[in-house]
Amino acid sequence: MARSILLRRANAIFHHDAAPKQPLRREALGRLPALSAGYLLIEDGRIAAYGPDAEAPERADLIIDAQDRLVLPCWCDSHTHIVYAASREGEFIDRLHGLTYEEIAERGGGILNSARKLQEASEDALYEQAFHRLYEVIRFGTGAIEIKSGYGLTVESELKMLRVIRRLRETAPIPVRATFLGAHAIPKAYKSDRQGYLNLIKQEMLPRIHDQGLADYIDVFCDQGFFTPEETADLLEAGDRYGLKAKIHVNELANSGGVQVGVTHNALSVDHLERIGEDEIGLLSTSKTIGTLLPSCAFFLNIPYAPGRALIDTGAAVALATDYNPGSTPSGKMSLVLSLACIKMRLTPEEAVNAATLNGAFAMELDEDYGSITVGKRAHLIVTRPVPSLAFLPYAFGSDHIAKVVLGNEVIDVTG
Amino acid sequence: MARSILLRRANAIFHHDAAPKQPLRREALGRLPALSAGYLLIEDGRIAAYGPDAEAPERADLIIDAQDRLVLPCWCDSHTHIVYAASREGEFIDRLHGLTYEEIAERGGGILNSARKLQEASEDALYEQAFHRLYEVIRFGTGAIEIKSGYGLTVESELKMLRVIRRLRETAPIPVRATFLGAHAIPKAYKSDRQGYLNLIKQEMLPRIHDQGLADYIDVFCDQGFFTPEETADLLEAGDRYGLKAKIHVNELANSGGVQVGVTHNALSVDHLERIGEDEIGLLSTSKTIGTLLPSCAFFLNIPYAPGRALIDTGAAVALATDYNPGSTPSGKMSLVLSLACIKMRLTPEEAVNAATLNGAFAMELDEDYGSITVGKRAHLIVTRPVPSLAFLPYAFGSDHIAKVVLGNEVIDVTG
Repeated sequence: MARSILLRRANAIFHHDAAPKQPLRREALGRLPALSAGYLLIEDGRIAAYGPDAEAPERADLIIDAQDRLVLPCWCDSHTHIVYAASREGEFIDRLHGLTYEEIAERGGGILNSARKLQEASEDALYEQAFHRLYEVIRFGTGAIEIKSGYGLTVESELKMLRVIRRLRETAPIPVRATFLGAHAIPKAYKSDRQGYLNLIKQEMLPRIHDQGLADYIDVFCDQGFFTPEETADLLEAGDRYGLKAKIHVNELANSGGVQVGVTHNALSVDHLERIGEDEIGLLSTSKTIGTLLPSCAFFLNIPYAPGRALIDTGAAVALATDYNPGSTPSGKMSLVLSLACIKMRLTPEEAVNAATLNGAFAMELDEDYGSITVGKRAHLIVTRPVPSLAFLPYAFGSDHIAKVVLGNEVIDVTG
Repeated sequence: MARSILLRRANAIFHHDAAPKQPLRREALGRLPALSAGYLLIEDGRIAAYGPDAEAPERADLIIDAQDRLVLPCWCDSHTHIVYAASREGEFIDRLHGLTYEEIAERGGGILNSARKLQEASEDALYEQAFHRLYEVIRFGTGAIEIKSGYGLTVESELKMLRVIRRLRETAPIPVRATFLGAHAIPKAYKSDRQGYLNLIKQEMLPRIHDQGLADYIDVFCDQGFFTPEETADLLEAGDRYGLKAKIHVNELANSGGVQVGVTHNALSVDHLERIGEDEIGLLSTSKTIGTLLPSCAFFLNIPYAPGRALIDTGAAVALATDYNPGSTPSGKMSLVLSLACIKMRLTPEEAVNAATLNGAFAMELDEDYGSITVGKRAHLIVTRPVPSLAFLPYAFGSDHIAKVVLGNEVIDVTG
């Protein structure tokens, strides 16, 4: 661990001199100034200075030669479900044999499958698995992350998940935000008593989560076959009474009113948007709510990609995240999310980077300290291998681009 | 370097006890026997024995504990273009700004862009870049590879490319097959004299390539806007006179007769097949010609995926390869090809592995020594990180699964 770290001779350092105070939109999303042949100085884990290499300080505890390399802020992955008990590749095989989601769910698959397995898993086992996934994504360049509950679906299991997330937050070298997603699905025991489960969330889960300070946000799977906009509104209001802002799942399966309820309730973000319509794009674009795109999910499920290009052009603030989970997105690789955003949604590389860093940080309210290379912010940085340009990163979609991940005073060697 | 290497306690070793004599088709393609809790012994670079771990020999120069890990044959990537002078991410950006391929070509982009850059590059520079890519894909698990010329398009530059491929073959730890693709595009100088370029190929390139023993196969880009089936037939006959079997590009851009000309000329493989029709699927299925699928290309270009499921069900012998090249597929990662084959073409994991290993080896006539775990074959093996099942590999599409790549007597530590 070094108190000062100096990066020298970087091919380009992608920075924002003044930290934007609001999520980037429209043309601003496409602006990512590049400082060529630059140095960057880290002191006590924060970005102390950067500038032309000729003006670099002479000394530091650790000097890293970044010649031919790009320096970027770490990814801020604002939507994941990395606490789970077991992968679900069996359902993936069922699906490629032609079974539908509904058929898989009837056989005991889907979220309820994860819930059953999670209920059986010990807290230590869950922590150990999630810790492994967290370090996997840190090596992929993720420097801030949000993690949801939602595979518990009982009071005890939801609290167990949130305690695992808290333990990750306490031990991880990156900031972890916790989102309570008790309303991920109606558990089997409440199949014919939806209101009973909503009451359980409102009357038992939320008060205990609040007492124990276990969550930053509340989430609801507001979509066809899951929770209605009315139920979602009711839950968001309950969350609001406990000080939890909303980050909700909407429009993955159908255009069923989720954007409206999110915007009405001042949601920090509405996430997925694969089935968003024109009216909802317009509504989102005039709101403060961030639209979080999860292209790895569409890739894996073979559903349409969210209209990222149209959302940006209409004026929405978009973020990019992985959705890392065992059912619809068994991948936590943000660099692949960037490739998908460019290849499938026609974002420019600059837009994709800003959406995956600064706007992701806004979608977790971590923008003050993370999400851009700005003097004073925490030095959570990606140093790439030698690459010819920023565009090369999403273009060469199968290659590993990250040489080092810097997390404040620590440097993780990924591929050298 | 160890003369004997012993893998112990593998979770599963995926093997073929008897080496298939023909490319796998239909149900056979889906069969990939797994030996649980197995050992595998390598002697002098070849697979000497495998069996239940309880029967493992006691001694070896090097013993590797493969507990919780899978052992697979290395990928056999039978279609690449990894000798090139420069990446083309600029055209990728043009494309996401809405330019068509035709417009990019008019601006000097496309294959002719690569040709211009290659003509200017020194043989050493080309070798160094290609060597870097070759080692990148070896770390991705590729244990045998085919490389094409085709960015030269002049006598000197095509020979230069093929000499680079020969030098790679001489220095690489994996077998390299060389394919002459002079007919990749009509060069600018022959724009109004197609026959002149065909004559150049037949009368100057082929004789010199033959004299210097620089190619194993001949390839033609038989597709709309490139070479017609008649021109292709003419070139394949010329190649045949010099002992070069055909491996050709067909049906990427249109269903324009390429499968027919390939099958008629006993092509070893017809590659791409994104636009193949039902008649051609039937024709291919009753022929000996292998259909090589390149799903990374469809992914990157946003064109339809080749109908892998239908090809297999109809009886075609299919192989999977990367198409690694700077224009349409800037990725050499075979594990991502497997994910695409399962997610987008509905191949089972077993079909995908067989298509990417044994059938790939057949598509390079390397099946005698490579492509399966069979006693007597060269020990080019992948040892995975701890994973729960074979299906997990294509399912967890963003994760890095490979711990070690074994190439005969050598062991490359990839992720430990």
